[in-house]
Amino acid sequence: MDVPALARVTVPCHWVPKAGRPQLSSGIDVRLTLPMSLAALHFGRRCSMRQARQRSRSRTQHTVMRYTSMCKDSDAPESMRRRFEAVVAEAQENICKAIEDCDGGAKFCKEPYTRESGGGGIARVLTNGNIFEKAGVNLSVVYGQMPQEALQAATERGADRAGGKLEPGQKVPFFACGLSSVMHPKNPFCPTMHFNYRYFETETGAWWFGGGTDITPSYLDRDDMKHFHGTYKDVCDKYSPEWYPKFKKWADEYFLIKHRGETRGLGGIFFDDFNTEDPETHLKFAEEALDAVPKAYVPILEKNRDKEFTEDQKQWQLLRRGRYVEFNLVYDRGTVFGLKMLGSGVGRIESILMSLPENAQWLYAHEPKEGSPEAEIMECFKEAKEWV
Amino acid sequence: MDVPALARVTVPCHWVPKAGRPQLSSGIDVRLTLPMSLAALHFGRRCSMRQARQRSRSRTQHTVMRYTSMCKDSDAPESMRRRFEAVVAEAQENICKAIEDCDGGAKFCKEPYTRESGGGGIARVLTNGNIFEKAGVNLSVVYGQMPQEALQAATERGADRAGGKLEPGQKVPFFACGLSSVMHPKNPFCPTMHFNYRYFETETGAWWFGGGTDITPSYLDRDDMKHFHGTYKDVCDKYSPEWYPKFKKWADEYFLIKHRGETRGLGGIFFDDFNTEDPETHLKFAEEALDAVPKAYVPILEKNRDKEFTEDQKQWQLLRRGRYVEFNLVYDRGTVFGLKMLGSGVGRIESILMSLPENAQWLYAHEPKEGSPEAEIMECFKEAKEWV
Repeated sequence: MDVPALARVTVPCHWVPKAGRPQLSSGIDVRLTLPMSLAALHFGRRCSMRQARQRSRSRTQHTVMRYTSMCKDSDAPESMRRRFEAVVAEAQENICKAIEDCDGGAKFCKEPYTRESGGGGIARVLTNGNIFEKAGVNLSVVYGQMPQEALQAATERGADRAGGKLEPGQKVPFFACGLSSVMHPKNPFCPTMHFNYRYFETETGAWWFGGGTDITPSYLDRDDMKHFHGTYKDVCDKYSPEWYPKFKKWADEYFLIKHRGETRGLGGIFFDDFNTEDPETHLKFAEEALDAVPKAYVPILEKNRDKEFTEDQKQWQLLRRGRYVEFNLVYDRGTVFGLKMLGSGVGRIESILMSLPENAQWLYAHEPKEGSPEAEIMECFKEAKEWV
Repeated sequence: MDVPALARVTVPCHWVPKAGRPQLSSGIDVRLTLPMSLAALHFGRRCSMRQARQRSRSRTQHTVMRYTSMCKDSDAPESMRRRFEAVVAEAQENICKAIEDCDGGAKFCKEPYTRESGGGGIARVLTNGNIFEKAGVNLSVVYGQMPQEALQAATERGADRAGGKLEPGQKVPFFACGLSSVMHPKNPFCPTMHFNYRYFETETGAWWFGGGTDITPSYLDRDDMKHFHGTYKDVCDKYSPEWYPKFKKWADEYFLIKHRGETRGLGGIFFDDFNTEDPETHLKFAEEALDAVPKAYVPILEKNRDKEFTEDQKQWQLLRRGRYVEFNLVYDRGTVFGLKMLGSGVGRIESILMSLPENAQWLYAHEPKEGSPEAEIMECFKEAKEWV
């Protein structure tokens, strides 16, 4: 089979490296005689941001136990590029660890990959766990020439973000680093959760942060929604009382499946083109929002993981997963941006579409019965509610 | 539940109308005291194009057994609008009949619907048959104000097709009529088949035809592909020896899932913005291409319908259905056009997304084993082959 070049560096779960496999030029440096499941342990240790910064300086050290920056040498150690990367690299490890502990069965595989144009990523995927059908957490560092339509797809303000006036057809050199994740549990009473925190720079000097965390239940549990939204309200309130209402509304608007007139799920927070504060504040906020992921999500899983469910309830979950696919392929900025970038030879299809559920279903003209729990949550998808 | 206005006229399969349900102002006129399964019989009789034209004249006759045009009164009986509608209305009946006969189990439901802005449609869907998981054949008549980006999505040449110079933001009044269909069988050795034949007019005087029929197997059978492509080559060759090679290549290019570097299936014919001949020739070609649908498809179903298959083979089919979903939501012109038009209040979501399979699957970084039948057909998706 003709495998595209970018896919050739992927490694399967529980991968034991073969002799002769070329060492990745950047990405994660591990002793290549160790199975990845052991290598994964090297990331279990929490490290401070200062430690992470120190690590990003030691790019030439090829020792086990180090995260090696995927930024280019030309990016200064104290640059926001490196520091944001360190924050999301640490968050990736912590969140995967928390989810593995919660699942108690399957482990995340770890697939580092590099790009010829610079940058790379680490895909981490857990499948067929006790709780999870599929959970993915993807770190990505991208240097590229962005077609203007990809920039359009990437941000709210589109080509304005280029930081200068562009000729038609002119591409925008950019840097982007992000951590994105979708987790699809098996039990229809356990919601799907998504987050994405990212930092963008164009070479013309524009910069901004984007991100958010949101939840997609198939069945409504008001207490769970209060807990999830409340956790993020607390994070936001530390910065400004205006942020939670603003970002909550933004999520309700962003996650609208326009052709259905319904949201993908029950929201959370979302922001983009965000550069109103000093960069340090934005970085700190991204870090705290990432820290809050397990706190916001794990208790909901623990509460619902062992609930019994019927075939009909499973089918309803699959139908909602169909809606998830519709949103992601048609509207999701990260996915649409990613698919467009692939056309310019930048990106990795498996990482971009990691967000899709393992199974999805479409039934013609299906409508939940009046008064049913399915109809109850549909009302919340049709009209945004307040949870805290 | 808050059901969007357009969905309110839908009727479920085997629907027995309730007293007091408002009679549809146009569309199919049936005795509203009959169940739809009986009403469906009224369309079983083949009718000539002349008969269909006569029927389209008798719009004011509300008798059983008549197809009533959904065109506006202002469209002359001999207009291409009416005549194309008559052709696709007849084809819808014939094809549904052929597929029902082949399936031998489930029947197509029939859901006429109207639009306040004029026009309407007839959705026909068969689910859970002996052969078919889901098969849909949708007739649609649309009068609308098309945003320029929808026109862009609808055609190759985009806004040029407006037939005049447009101000930014100016909408294009248009008429469109089409018959589109996707059929997803259960057995992984029975291919999915899709066709779509359509006629467009803008009020500024531009007109064109578009369409095609294509096939999407999960496993390669060269004889089946020779039969399918050969049937359409025969139809094309009656018009020009250049048409089949041209339309075959067009299909191979059109059905490319760009972000995967692979086609959705094994092609067929595809054309768009087609107005090089006199309109009569285009109409006749559409009619013959529609006539060829059962001839091209049914023998392949008959041959493969009872083949035994494993769970792994079923899973491979579900993964290919995932690709089908990716293509349709990201690239398919009809789907993208339809979803954009919904934003302008024109369209019916269930008809637009009727093309999606009932079940689809995504597995992270799945690749078929070297030398396997799955790898064999992947090679054909990666690089177009000749079949006749």
